[in-house]
Amino acid sequence: MFQINDNYQKLPGSYLFSTIAKKVAAFSEANPDKTIIRLGIGDVTQPIAPAIIDAMHKAVDEMADAKTFRGYAPDLGYEFLRKAIADNDYKARGCDIEADEIFVSDGAKSDSGNIQEIFGADNRIAVCDPVYPVYVDSNVMAGRTGTYDAATGMWSNVIYMPCTRENNFVPEFPKETPDMIYLCLPNNPTGTTITKAQLQEWVDYANKVGAVIIYDGAYEAYISEDDVAHSIYECEGAKTCAIELKSFSKNAGFTGVRLGYTVVPKELKCGDVSLHSMWARRHGTKFNGAPYIIQRAGEAVYSEAGKAQLKEQIAYYMKNAKTIKSGLQETGFEVYGGVNAPYIWLKTPDSMTSWEFFDYLLEKANVVGTPGSGFGPSGEGYFRLTAFGSYENTVAALERIKAL
Amino acid sequence: MFQINDNYQKLPGSYLFSTIAKKVAAFSEANPDKTIIRLGIGDVTQPIAPAIIDAMHKAVDEMADAKTFRGYAPDLGYEFLRKAIADNDYKARGCDIEADEIFVSDGAKSDSGNIQEIFGADNRIAVCDPVYPVYVDSNVMAGRTGTYDAATGMWSNVIYMPCTRENNFVPEFPKETPDMIYLCLPNNPTGTTITKAQLQEWVDYANKVGAVIIYDGAYEAYISEDDVAHSIYECEGAKTCAIELKSFSKNAGFTGVRLGYTVVPKELKCGDVSLHSMWARRHGTKFNGAPYIIQRAGEAVYSEAGKAQLKEQIAYYMKNAKTIKSGLQETGFEVYGGVNAPYIWLKTPDSMTSWEFFDYLLEKANVVGTPGSGFGPSGEGYFRLTAFGSYENTVAALERIKAL
Repeated sequence: MFQINDNYQKLPGSYLFSTIAKKVAAFSEANPDKTIIRLGIGDVTQPIAPAIIDAMHKAVDEMADAKTFRGYAPDLGYEFLRKAIADNDYKARGCDIEADEIFVSDGAKSDSGNIQEIFGADNRIAVCDPVYPVYVDSNVMAGRTGTYDAATGMWSNVIYMPCTRENNFVPEFPKETPDMIYLCLPNNPTGTTITKAQLQEWVDYANKVGAVIIYDGAYEAYISEDDVAHSIYECEGAKTCAIELKSFSKNAGFTGVRLGYTVVPKELKCGDVSLHSMWARRHGTKFNGAPYIIQRAGEAVYSEAGKAQLKEQIAYYMKNAKTIKSGLQETGFEVYGGVNAPYIWLKTPDSMTSWEFFDYLLEKANVVGTPGSGFGPSGEGYFRLTAFGSYENTVAALERIKAL
Repeated sequence: MFQINDNYQKLPGSYLFSTIAKKVAAFSEANPDKTIIRLGIGDVTQPIAPAIIDAMHKAVDEMADAKTFRGYAPDLGYEFLRKAIADNDYKARGCDIEADEIFVSDGAKSDSGNIQEIFGADNRIAVCDPVYPVYVDSNVMAGRTGTYDAATGMWSNVIYMPCTRENNFVPEFPKETPDMIYLCLPNNPTGTTITKAQLQEWVDYANKVGAVIIYDGAYEAYISEDDVAHSIYECEGAKTCAIELKSFSKNAGFTGVRLGYTVVPKELKCGDVSLHSMWARRHGTKFNGAPYIIQRAGEAVYSEAGKAQLKEQIAYYMKNAKTIKSGLQETGFEVYGGVNAPYIWLKTPDSMTSWEFFDYLLEKANVVGTPGSGFGPSGEGYFRLTAFGSYENTVAALERIKAL
């Protein structure tokens, strides 16, 4: 008789955003007259920029003609896209990353979930707390996390690095030595980040203790402060200890277009085994490339017209972030993030739990946010609002919150 | 110090098609005057059908307008596509599969590689030999296959079911009881298949011994004989033992468009654990949906215009198959497949090994095929040609082979 992967049974409840969707659906059904404003899931609302739309139409037409039709893509991505990424996201910033160190994928969520596969089953992971749930959940599925304690919301074999107002949301080096360190910076959900100097300390630490850093830079495009690194490879020594994950979802609105990439430097090794070769093998065996049409869309992100249009799009969302942050502050909320990231992280008032505040906001203001506790135990008592709505909805949501 | 997944180190050499690509590149460089005809990798050459192109343009335009823009897709696929699949591929054939038992993905290769994740580490797999390499390789990476014997090309903990001319390419029930049985029917690489009655015996066997069948139906659209099942769910009892993987690559030319789906019936359980729930959790955690534009392309496959255009496309490739098969037979080759699948499987002449025949064909005829031994030990002494070239190239390749 076949057996299942028992690790799946350890996962408590269902995925955060599914739960939110169910709660919102139930509320909508019970209150058909209410207009709900969603500032919950980090999904974008602005349409795809014209330069990217043009590139996709052109690529669709190429697929219609035998002379220009493209079948299987190179497993690791088309050269035109890998080169555009290397030139714009790395070389232009002084990072020595080559096109063949870049692996194009169908999105950073897939890469975030799959990257742990190339590591040993006994590795111990460290995560910021709170953080994007995929890092822990994908390691639960792989059996690396020990047992779950429902009372604390913690896994026995995960090293948690609390990021709260007490430490200004800067993770501290853990007491126990981790093998794999997940860093999402600017952080989802807190919207906070650390300076380049602080990141350099993490790189030095990882190299010293022999840990690998899995660096999720999905929100990099929102960085506005000068002393924040746009890539971990701006730090000296990062190529021997860090893998970087990047997404096109937030800088170009590709949440429904699906494109991402992962950088695995050739210098990154375990003994004499190259992690670059391992990830290439994983791609070659379990993945068949991102769609040609979508890779052309990715290329257009780096065109002059694309860059100019996306700069405006990001400014649009960051105007929302400012609106939320200042609006909440005026109302007396304690608020973080929103400067280098499109997320606003607020302390719930009156000692409400995160889910209590979720229900309160949904029922009283008909505004959907995300409970901080869904991102880890140290997220309890916090709440996330995103700047990805339309400006009109963002303003309307703030008016409702102010009126509470 | 972090450790790697040591199972990766067990994988011998590199992936079959990468090796072929390297050999062909080396030959091309050494012989720039020769025109190579590729009947090797199973990649299509005909452009995407007009009905599908129209659907993609329309979807691209929707992404350009905030009113019709789509962000994150439902994890498991858009309802419009899941319903089209359920109606056309299942209900129309009398199979009782619901839309919510269908999981849309970025392609059957991803699903083929990932599906093993939801099963226990100690499960024993059985595979047809020869077969598509991803089934074994993805299980090697997960540590299920034991050790590799380079002399035999076999893994100590894999049950091989030889499919050769001696048994008319019909797999026999193995002596040892497997937990997971991979069946690719019509088979890649042999192009052969089994009757619905024979498939029913496999379903009965799996239900009896408590095995799960992972049924890869990627070539279903090429079935021409009446007594062959188009889905395993045409067999009684399949919903309690079988997962079906389907691709849009071969029926609609989506090798570079990327779309596939997996059916996990709700009745399929291990004890009281639903595999449907497990696969949903896997999708929700490590995947973020196929692109909206591509899902609309998939929907168009099932439109009246799309169906008519794809029927012609398949007829085009099957004319190639007939050309190759009859041409080789006239030349005295022993040939199989090509009736219910776009693959021709030939016995190498003069006791040549598969790779010897590969080199011979590349050097003497400048035709690229795929060595049978690359698909498993029982593929040794066989060779695969595909019908996916243009008709002109197919005819030209046959003329060259006849002239040898």
